[in-house]
Amino acid sequence: MAKNKPVLGITMGDPASIGPEIAIKTLLNKETYEKCYPLLVGDAGVLENSLKKMGKKAKINKVDAVDKAKYEFGTIDIYDLEYPDISNLEMGEITALAGDIAFKTVTTNIQLALDGKIDGTVTGPINKESLHKAGHYYSGHTEIYAEYTDTKKYAMLLVEDNLRVIHVSTHVSLREACDLVKKERILDTIELIDDACRKLGVENPKIGVAGLNPHASDGGLFGWEEEKEIDPAVQTALKKGYNVEGPVPPDTMFSKAMGGVYDGCVAMYHDQGHIPFKVVGFNWDREKGQMKSVRGVNITLGLPIIRTSVDHGTAMEIAGQGIASPDAMSLAIDYAIRLHKHR
Amino acid sequence: MAKNKPVLGITMGDPASIGPEIAIKTLLNKETYEKCYPLLVGDAGVLENSLKKMGKKAKINKVDAVDKAKYEFGTIDIYDLEYPDISNLEMGEITALAGDIAFKTVTTNIQLALDGKIDGTVTGPINKESLHKAGHYYSGHTEIYAEYTDTKKYAMLLVEDNLRVIHVSTHVSLREACDLVKKERILDTIELIDDACRKLGVENPKIGVAGLNPHASDGGLFGWEEEKEIDPAVQTALKKGYNVEGPVPPDTMFSKAMGGVYDGCVAMYHDQGHIPFKVVGFNWDREKGQMKSVRGVNITLGLPIIRTSVDHGTAMEIAGQGIASPDAMSLAIDYAIRLHKHR
Repeated sequence: MAKNKPVLGITMGDPASIGPEIAIKTLLNKETYEKCYPLLVGDAGVLENSLKKMGKKAKINKVDAVDKAKYEFGTIDIYDLEYPDISNLEMGEITALAGDIAFKTVTTNIQLALDGKIDGTVTGPINKESLHKAGHYYSGHTEIYAEYTDTKKYAMLLVEDNLRVIHVSTHVSLREACDLVKKERILDTIELIDDACRKLGVENPKIGVAGLNPHASDGGLFGWEEEKEIDPAVQTALKKGYNVEGPVPPDTMFSKAMGGVYDGCVAMYHDQGHIPFKVVGFNWDREKGQMKSVRGVNITLGLPIIRTSVDHGTAMEIAGQGIASPDAMSLAIDYAIRLHKHR
Repeated sequence: MAKNKPVLGITMGDPASIGPEIAIKTLLNKETYEKCYPLLVGDAGVLENSLKKMGKKAKINKVDAVDKAKYEFGTIDIYDLEYPDISNLEMGEITALAGDIAFKTVTTNIQLALDGKIDGTVTGPINKESLHKAGHYYSGHTEIYAEYTDTKKYAMLLVEDNLRVIHVSTHVSLREACDLVKKERILDTIELIDDACRKLGVENPKIGVAGLNPHASDGGLFGWEEEKEIDPAVQTALKKGYNVEGPVPPDTMFSKAMGGVYDGCVAMYHDQGHIPFKVVGFNWDREKGQMKSVRGVNITLGLPIIRTSVDHGTAMEIAGQGIASPDAMSLAIDYAIRLHKHR
């Protein structure tokens, strides 16, 4: 095996979702094999059924150890969960069975990376409701990764074209997000994204730090968090040698970042970062009433292992139809490769 | 004069800003005369100086009554403020003189529309600091228009491609914006944007109403405003016959709107609407360190007169350099024409 290409564990995500389909499309793309050694992680029975539904043919090489994988284009190597019975799985249905398979796929992939058997992990979409039905009470991948890798300080990085966004808080109410705008958290977040940009190959990254309030409070007219928390965090970061600017008015920061002004953006709350990210990366098809392309990638920072992911959901409503776009999965693989290269 | 073309009063904005330049570029564009009768409102001395600085030649027709305008391409008709002395005006400087000229330009234009002398008003950028230096304590155009037209219930509509965005609140802190998410305000806003879409020529507009919290609170996990305020407003609007949907997760609503799913978007706070709007409409040029194009238009709803505006600022740092883009001004004129047509 060539040393320069990483071995990546790729999960098929929720087996009742578009996950298996986008994984298969990615693994039946020759380019994937030119850039990495891809190992599918999931259930071989689900893979067989999905191939049949898609009318695609591929050899399947079930393995129970990473070194048994062949990495030959045309053969899908799968690290097989060997689920006893998947005959009850229905595409598009939220069930405990689907949630359990999705969960075990993720934890298996994490373990392979922790054991040093693979160089990084790439994940397909999972469904929180299915997880909960199966008794796995996590909000999503990030929380599973944090627990199974015993990581306390971690964050989600969204990547799309020139846009690299990290959040001071994510899944909390907007009121609670205001309370979480604290100097120390902001400083931690600046340090995380600076490190992430470097690991993605950006030298001396320029970091933009958004304000919380409109016009970054316009000199204190609308809110006080810029003066009391955000500006002090920026000043401390500057003293520590970070190339950082802020608080930047939130409504111009992201278009400036799109134009290359900032290599990394610190968003103060979930939607401040997610809205520009999805406006740029998600394209809706009015006629079909569905997303026609989704290019966003989600990277978990602070983990001892590499983890990149598609940023879209399980799209249960189109699962099994063969129309899901593998663009984000392909990009997630690209970013895992970049992270491995600059690790 | 042909009856189908409206007479539009176009302000030159802050005389020390890019305002005169973009107005001149627009008035030296033959297309402008094909679609409307444009009357510049401002000071003729400023116009003369700006033409000289830009190295442009044009005849100037100073008028003190609208019916004296000629509307011939190549001649700029200007409703002249006749400022006694503008020799102290410096490009790019924030001064009381510039603020006073900017203010009187706006109020003059409003009065011409209220008197029925013109069919609509289009405004260039003004600077809040200059206004304040001149003793005119307004946050911006919208507040001046509200006072001078004696309007209590008004709102700002942002328009760009498929995106039409209105806000439940604007220039308040994010914490205060959370407090302003109230059923009655939301309902008023839905009614305003429905009416605006119709006046822009959209029949039976589909209105998307955003949630306040991430994932629109994900069933109450992060916040309560969706259940207590936003959903009740949507339900009442549906009963009243509006074609409305929500609360929609804020991070997908705007990409769906871009794809044509919603004709109008109700944003819960300033940046929720401004961020996607500027990501779509503002393009930053990294090499030059400035915006290379800005296409957003700002329309004030609820007024007795038509008012559209460029949505960008005064860009003092590039004033007088001849490089400002007139794209937004040209679009603002287009929207004033549409509003006049469907009035």
